[in-house]
Amino acid sequence: MNSSRRQFLTTSALASAAAVSTTPARSEETAKAGTLELKQGATILLQGDSITDAGRDKTIAEPNHTKALGNGYARMIAYHLLSKYPEKELKLYNRGISGNKVPDLDGRWEKDCLELKPDILSIMIGVNDYWHTVAFGSKYEGTVESYGTGFKALLDRTREALPDTRIVICEPFVVRAADGSTRPDWFPEFDQRREKAREAAQASGALYVEFQQMFDAAVAAGYPHKELAGDDIHPSPHGHALMASRWLGDTGLA
Amino acid sequence: MNSSRRQFLTTSALASAAAVSTTPARSEETAKAGTLELKQGATILLQGDSITDAGRDKTIAEPNHTKALGNGYARMIAYHLLSKYPEKELKLYNRGISGNKVPDLDGRWEKDCLELKPDILSIMIGVNDYWHTVAFGSKYEGTVESYGTGFKALLDRTREALPDTRIVICEPFVVRAADGSTRPDWFPEFDQRREKAREAAQASGALYVEFQQMFDAAVAAGYPHKELAGDDIHPSPHGHALMASRWLGDTGLA
Repeated sequence: MNSSRRQFLTTSALASAAAVSTTPARSEETAKAGTLELKQGATILLQGDSITDAGRDKTIAEPNHTKALGNGYARMIAYHLLSKYPEKELKLYNRGISGNKVPDLDGRWEKDCLELKPDILSIMIGVNDYWHTVAFGSKYEGTVESYGTGFKALLDRTREALPDTRIVICEPFVVRAADGSTRPDWFPEFDQRREKAREAAQASGALYVEFQQMFDAAVAAGYPHKELAGDDIHPSPHGHALMASRWLGDTGLA
Repeated sequence: MNSSRRQFLTTSALASAAAVSTTPARSEETAKAGTLELKQGATILLQGDSITDAGRDKTIAEPNHTKALGNGYARMIAYHLLSKYPEKELKLYNRGISGNKVPDLDGRWEKDCLELKPDILSIMIGVNDYWHTVAFGSKYEGTVESYGTGFKALLDRTREALPDTRIVICEPFVVRAADGSTRPDWFPEFDQRREKAREAAQASGALYVEFQQMFDAAVAAGYPHKELAGDDIHPSPHGHALMASRWLGDTGLA
């Protein structure tokens, strides 16, 4: 990846017009001007695994229902937008499912994404794509390459069906101790997978929210990592709150 | 209050250059351009009552410590800023104290505000100024007028000592049921007090974050009010998360 292009996709610049511009943003001002916009009646879909799911009630299909939005960052984002922009009459959906990997999203994409025709689509996927190769019987045989290829194919399919949809890719993360002693066996492969997510975002012109950098920086600034995610993977309410405010800031929708 | 001036201070426009401009913002773009900025090494102080305090460890005086920042919106704001702008080397302090009213802030303002020389000062105060007149023995005799006068005097004192400090006033709120059946005896006096907080913000050129409107809108959009604040006053983690993202969005620091 071109280094200036990479710079363009870092968190600070990511509020830029990545999806519509072919040249890097020149300044913070340019970046701000390119953030996502909320159309009247816009549909916003949050997709992913257990971190997005967060115990949502899957029997409720309607938008904007607190129980259907789960107990995590998705609901926090949803109610920030609903309370700040009530006149927009937004429709927020959470369709995250615990345990999902890229192939699982692909298998339910028609029903759980394309048919909803989201104006803004946020996807966080990748932790299980690695985790299930080393735990839970290690029966999943996905590789770094197949994760990247599958993720890109999913985004290509989405772009083809929904060319005007703005896409936000949320970086898969592990909430680590400052000394890096958390799940050392996950690295460097987990970092290689994060890079694949970034490349998939770049290839599809999606915004990329750098959650790994965010959690690393929070821990470096003194936040005990186990208070952000007791099992290193699933955020606490405060971890979810940080995710929501970062997502809202980076997309320009805060 | 002049109506165009009032419009200027509504939430959507409040990310504007209220503190430095003498004319209302003409557009959302102008408003965005006037949001707060983070100077290198800036000190940010969050002041208030129990909602700000949120169980902070008062034995820790140093900035940026998770325990010293409490368990609420103050810590969420702090770690959003610390993790998003690590290069700024910010210093975040929470000096909220449970039960405080305006006169309590005034009594400890030299030590707990002026000496810290904050570049950004956020204040949420006013719930106890009313509550203590009707509960806890009802021994407090403050009125709507004395709340407004005292709040303005506190801000005048602050402006005199710290002319360059950007001030953010957080609206006192009650998290109410959609039908308004929550604490009906608090109204209309509580609304009159909110208006005093708004007027004090206006008079000092402070930003004003409309938390009452936010919680009302969240409840109107379907969020069960008791899940945002079980006792109507003290927010849940999700209530605090909404406060943090609104504060960050309105100040332009998200």
